[in-house]
Amino acid sequence: MNVEGRHFRTIWTEGDGEGEVLRIIDQTALPHEFRIIDLHSVDEVCRSIREMWVRGAGLIGATAAWGVWLAAREAAHLSAEEFSVRMAMSMEALRVTRPTASNLVWALQRQQKAIAGLFGAAAVDAAHAEAQAIADEDADFCRRIGEHGRAVIEAIAARKPGQTVNILTHCNAGWLAFVDYGSALSPVYAAFDAGIPVHVWVDETRPRNQGASLTAWELGQHGVPHSLIADNVGGHLMQHGMVDMVITGADRVTLCGDAANKIGTYLKALAAADNAVPFYVALPSSTFDFSLRNGVLEIPIEERSAEEVRVMSGSLLNENGQTAGTASVRICPEFTPARNWAFDVTPARLITGLITERGVCEASEESVLSLYPEQK
Amino acid sequence: MNVEGRHFRTIWTEGDGEGEVLRIIDQTALPHEFRIIDLHSVDEVCRSIREMWVRGAGLIGATAAWGVWLAAREAAHLSAEEFSVRMAMSMEALRVTRPTASNLVWALQRQQKAIAGLFGAAAVDAAHAEAQAIADEDADFCRRIGEHGRAVIEAIAARKPGQTVNILTHCNAGWLAFVDYGSALSPVYAAFDAGIPVHVWVDETRPRNQGASLTAWELGQHGVPHSLIADNVGGHLMQHGMVDMVITGADRVTLCGDAANKIGTYLKALAAADNAVPFYVALPSSTFDFSLRNGVLEIPIEERSAEEVRVMSGSLLNENGQTAGTASVRICPEFTPARNWAFDVTPARLITGLITERGVCEASEESVLSLYPEQK
Repeated sequence: MNVEGRHFRTIWTEGDGEGEVLRIIDQTALPHEFRIIDLHSVDEVCRSIREMWVRGAGLIGATAAWGVWLAAREAAHLSAEEFSVRMAMSMEALRVTRPTASNLVWALQRQQKAIAGLFGAAAVDAAHAEAQAIADEDADFCRRIGEHGRAVIEAIAARKPGQTVNILTHCNAGWLAFVDYGSALSPVYAAFDAGIPVHVWVDETRPRNQGASLTAWELGQHGVPHSLIADNVGGHLMQHGMVDMVITGADRVTLCGDAANKIGTYLKALAAADNAVPFYVALPSSTFDFSLRNGVLEIPIEERSAEEVRVMSGSLLNENGQTAGTASVRICPEFTPARNWAFDVTPARLITGLITERGVCEASEESVLSLYPEQK
Repeated sequence: MNVEGRHFRTIWTEGDGEGEVLRIIDQTALPHEFRIIDLHSVDEVCRSIREMWVRGAGLIGATAAWGVWLAAREAAHLSAEEFSVRMAMSMEALRVTRPTASNLVWALQRQQKAIAGLFGAAAVDAAHAEAQAIADEDADFCRRIGEHGRAVIEAIAARKPGQTVNILTHCNAGWLAFVDYGSALSPVYAAFDAGIPVHVWVDETRPRNQGASLTAWELGQHGVPHSLIADNVGGHLMQHGMVDMVITGADRVTLCGDAANKIGTYLKALAAADNAVPFYVALPSSTFDFSLRNGVLEIPIEERSAEEVRVMSGSLLNENGQTAGTASVRICPEFTPARNWAFDVTPARLITGLITERGVCEASEESVLSLYPEQK
C-alpha cells in the first residue's frame, strides 16, 4: 500500500550478496514518525518481533522467515553438523518471541523443510528463496482475501443503495499487519477502490492502541473515511443500527473456527450476535492451526507487561495543543498493579464467516475442510 | 471514606452564614493530585459538573442540590417574583450540564418543592436544609446498598470457602461517585471490612479512565486488593472462570430495569451472560427513572468531545520512568476524526439483580415495584 503516495511493503530486502539488508517499518513509532529500521542478524529479528517493531499475524510469520535467512547467513561458515545445531537454536529463539500467532510456527516449519539437508551457501540461498516466497504469498493471499471480502461488502451495500456501509474493526489487521493489503482491511480497501461508500469504526484497541496508531493511520493514508472510537463503544453503535458488519483479523484459528485475536474481539462478537450484525474474521491459511479444535481451551494466550496498561505513549501536547515530540504518561496511581492479556478467543458460534484466500466459509470444521480438503 | 487516613465526603460546606463555602474534591486531578476546590456561585457549580470536577450519578445530584442553595443565596436580595424567575433560570442551567444521569433532575425537583413559595432568607435556609438532606440521604442509602450487596458477596464466598471472590467493576461507582461509600463499590468495602477475601478487576474505562484514575485510587486508599485491566479483558477473564461476579453502578435505570451506565457496561453484561457470571447493578432510588420503560430507546445518551478519545492525560514520565508533573499525549494521527458516546444501556434481560438501599430485586417492573410500591 502507499505511504505519502509511494508504495511500500512492511518488510523487504535491499542490496545484494553480503550487503543485502532486511528492512522493516518501525510500527512502535507510528503514527508519530515513519521510521525504517535495518535488521542485520537473527538476534535483531527476534528483538523486532518481541518488542513489536513488527506485529500482526502475517508480518510476524514473514519476519521470522527472513530471520531464518539471516541466521543461515551468519552460520554459513559452519560445518553441516554445527550449522544444523545453530539453526535449530535460532529457530527456537524465533519461535518463542511471541506465543499466540500461528503464522510464526508455520513460517518456521516451511523454512525448516526448505533448508533440510542443506548448509553453507546452498542453505542461505534456499532460506532466502523461501522467505521471499512466504512474503510474496502473504501479499497475494491478502489480495485475494480482499476480493472475496469485497463481495460480502457489496452484498450489504446492495441492500442499502446509496447509503454508506459502516464496518467496525478491532486492532490492526491492515497491510501493516501483513506484508501488504492486510486481512480485515483488505476487503475494505477493495470495496473503497471499487467505489462502494464505506466508513470504518476504528476501535482504538487498548492497551497498545494499534487501532488509534496504526489502523487510523493506514486508512487515513489511503483516504478511507473512518472514525476512531474507544473499545467500549461498539455495543452501543450496534444497538442503534450504526454498524452493518464487523471484520477482524485473527492470530490463530482452529479447525472448528474458534478465532484467537486481539483482546476484546470476543466482546464485539457477543455484541454483534446480540444485535444480528454479521461478524467476519479474515485470515490467510497460514493463520489456521488445523491441529486444534477448542480455541478457548487450547490456544495459549500471551500475558504481557503491566506497564503497557499503566503507561500510555503519544505525541506530547503543549499548553497550546501543539505537539512537542513524543512522551509517556502514567494513567493510574503509582503503585496500582495491572494485568495484561493480549488476546482472547471468539468461539465459532459467534462468527458469521471466515474470509480466506480461497473464499468465504462458515466457522465450522466441515466448512473449513471444504475449502482446505488437503487437511482432512 | 478515608484519604490518607482522614475521613472525607466528596462534597461538604465549611464556615457559617455569608462565609459558608461549598467544597469539592477536583476529580480531574486524581490520582496525581488530591486537590480541594471551593465553589462560590451557581455558575461555578454548573462548571464543576460540566467539566467533571465532580462526576458520578449521586454526586452530580448532590452537587446540583448545593448549587440551588448557592443560586438562592445569590438571589436572596430579589423580590418574590424576580427570585422565582432567577431560580427557574438557575435550575435550568444546572439541568442542562449533563443529560444522562437521572439523579440530577431528581435533586432539582426536590429542591423545587423545598423552596416552592419561598424567597429571600427563608428560601436560602430551605435550600440549604434540602441540599444537606439530599447529601446525607445519599450517604445513608449507599451505606445500605453496601449491606445488601455484602450479603450477595457473602453467598458467593460461601460457595468457595477460603478462596478469593473476584469482582469485576467498570468505571467508578465508588464513594467518589456519590457523597460517601459509593454504589457498586459499597458492597465491596462492606465485604472487605467484614473480612471476606475480595479482589477487584478494575476496568480502566476509556476514554476518561475513571477506573484507572479513580477506582484504582480509592480501592488503594482503603487497602482493597485490585488489578487494573484494559476494558477489553473482562470477556477473557470470564471465559476462564476468573470473575465471580460483576457489579457496576448506573446513571439511570428504568422501571423495567434497563440500566444506562458508562459506555462499555453493556459489553461486560453480554460476556457475563455468556459465561453465567452474575451481573449486578447497584443504585440508590434516586437513580431510577420510573417514567421510562425501554432504556435503549428512551434514555438520552450524551456525546462528548472527540478530544477525550484522541488525547490522554496522566503523570508525565521522564526517561528514567520518574514522574515530572502531568501532561497530555495524542495517541492517534493529527487529523484522525473520533466519536465519543459516554454511556450505553444494558437491557434488563442481562442483569441478575439490582442492589438498592431497600434490598436486592430483579431487573423487572414487577420486582422493582415490589421494592418501591409507592411508584405504582
